[in-house]
Amino acid sequence: MADDRCIGVFDSGIGGLTVVRELQRRLPNERIVYFGDTARVPYGIKSTQTVTRFSREICEFLLRFDPKVIVVACNTASAVALAELEEMLPVPVYGVVEPGAREAVLHAEGHTIAVIATEATILSDAYRKAMAKYNPGARVLQKPCPLFVPLVEEGRHSDDAITRAVVRDYLEPIVRLDPKVLVLGCTHYPLLKDAIAEVTGEGIRLVDSGEQTARVVVERLTALEALSVRTMKGSLSCYVSDNPQRFKELGQRFCGHPITDVTWVPHEQFLSHDAPSPVV
Amino acid sequence: MADDRCIGVFDSGIGGLTVVRELQRRLPNERIVYFGDTARVPYGIKSTQTVTRFSREICEFLLRFDPKVIVVACNTASAVALAELEEMLPVPVYGVVEPGAREAVLHAEGHTIAVIATEATILSDAYRKAMAKYNPGARVLQKPCPLFVPLVEEGRHSDDAITRAVVRDYLEPIVRLDPKVLVLGCTHYPLLKDAIAEVTGEGIRLVDSGEQTARVVVERLTALEALSVRTMKGSLSCYVSDNPQRFKELGQRFCGHPITDVTWVPHEQFLSHDAPSPVV
Repeated sequence: MADDRCIGVFDSGIGGLTVVRELQRRLPNERIVYFGDTARVPYGIKSTQTVTRFSREICEFLLRFDPKVIVVACNTASAVALAELEEMLPVPVYGVVEPGAREAVLHAEGHTIAVIATEATILSDAYRKAMAKYNPGARVLQKPCPLFVPLVEEGRHSDDAITRAVVRDYLEPIVRLDPKVLVLGCTHYPLLKDAIAEVTGEGIRLVDSGEQTARVVVERLTALEALSVRTMKGSLSCYVSDNPQRFKELGQRFCGHPITDVTWVPHEQFLSHDAPSPVV
Repeated sequence: MADDRCIGVFDSGIGGLTVVRELQRRLPNERIVYFGDTARVPYGIKSTQTVTRFSREICEFLLRFDPKVIVVACNTASAVALAELEEMLPVPVYGVVEPGAREAVLHAEGHTIAVIATEATILSDAYRKAMAKYNPGARVLQKPCPLFVPLVEEGRHSDDAITRAVVRDYLEPIVRLDPKVLVLGCTHYPLLKDAIAEVTGEGIRLVDSGEQTARVVVERLTALEALSVRTMKGSLSCYVSDNPQRFKELGQRFCGHPITDVTWVPHEQFLSHDAPSPVV
């Protein structure tokens, strides 16, 4: 048993490429089709209704590639739209919140868990709800860190003075509350891991939701006997709703290698159900 | 001669309310209809093509209110889409770039002019081109300041330590090049005026493009004899493509008074040309 169809992945923009990096590391032979909604990024300050509509439209686009699964590599979309996508889609859908929440509860051993994420993810309370399924008594602190995404997108690294000041500003009050685990609940945040670890120190374990999601996808595809049996190297085809050049330039830092195959999807083609299926 | 029709104003989100504040100060009896594209904000990292499409859609929406003029209270949209809007619209359109550029050249007296704005505004080179019309030899420095918008939207003020560090980081290299004028080329930036002035000092004049635009609108309406002769207090009706509650909460800081009349425009209604004209 095998399934050579592609894995569909989407995010509001480039952040989801950190999930792609983890998927490629574990599944080097799979074909991945990625959609980044760069015309409407970011999702983290937008309403449930709007993010759900955007996510639905993207999944309809991805279905044209006949994926075997779709990975919602965006915490905000996972937090607010996953249930509706699961209902609507004819293939399994995996979000990033659940795997991160599970891993956090596992390591917390009853101690406090902190979650940092976008405003919309925190407002949705999705992490707390997911953690309560594994431990109904889980103590969860949540804090939005709205400057992290623009810091990363501007190209600032963990050793930048402004980055370090912002990380201290957000995280020092959390560290004082003595959590045992800190969940990086936004796919941009792993790029600031070094600066974050400097403030949290060795006593707090960092959980990267994207990394955990890649593990879950491998587990599920293995259980479904749906891994590809192709022996040649996999591929990454990216589609964006705006600015393919900017995506290429910034994307490399997120997925760890140059991105060559980026196609701009014009608005009309994105929303048209009559558009010819692209061939990957 | 008089014209009691409303003034249409739009921005990618809430920033344009700083222009509304200046308009209301000068024209307290006018009715203003404002559209904030909060579902697709920000524009400053997006392509000319996409920002032009968004601007066109918004102007079509605003035309339903029968405005006498439309003010593009967004530097990015003014920088990349104004010419197309002027061609398309049956009413005069005023952008924020031209008035800011004119004022800057006037005060620079041949010395260097610095412009800070979003990535897209800087890439468009719109300020430099507009300044060249008034002084072909104008020396213009341009610098994107992508963290300013998220700092303001997070609610940080000029006295916040992070804000002050970021302002220093962006502006100290500019100040060393000894400009005589600094243009605040984004409608969010006036909210950081105090922090900016602290770094630029007394020798550099700050030009607020939004404020200059309000002056120009008054001049033009006066010249056209198109001011309202209503004696009762004007009004501000806001329409947004997402999250009316967030707009209300943040908007007050931008326009200087509480905003009560905010209507969410659902996607279908926004794009439908058959939708009934709202009555203001």
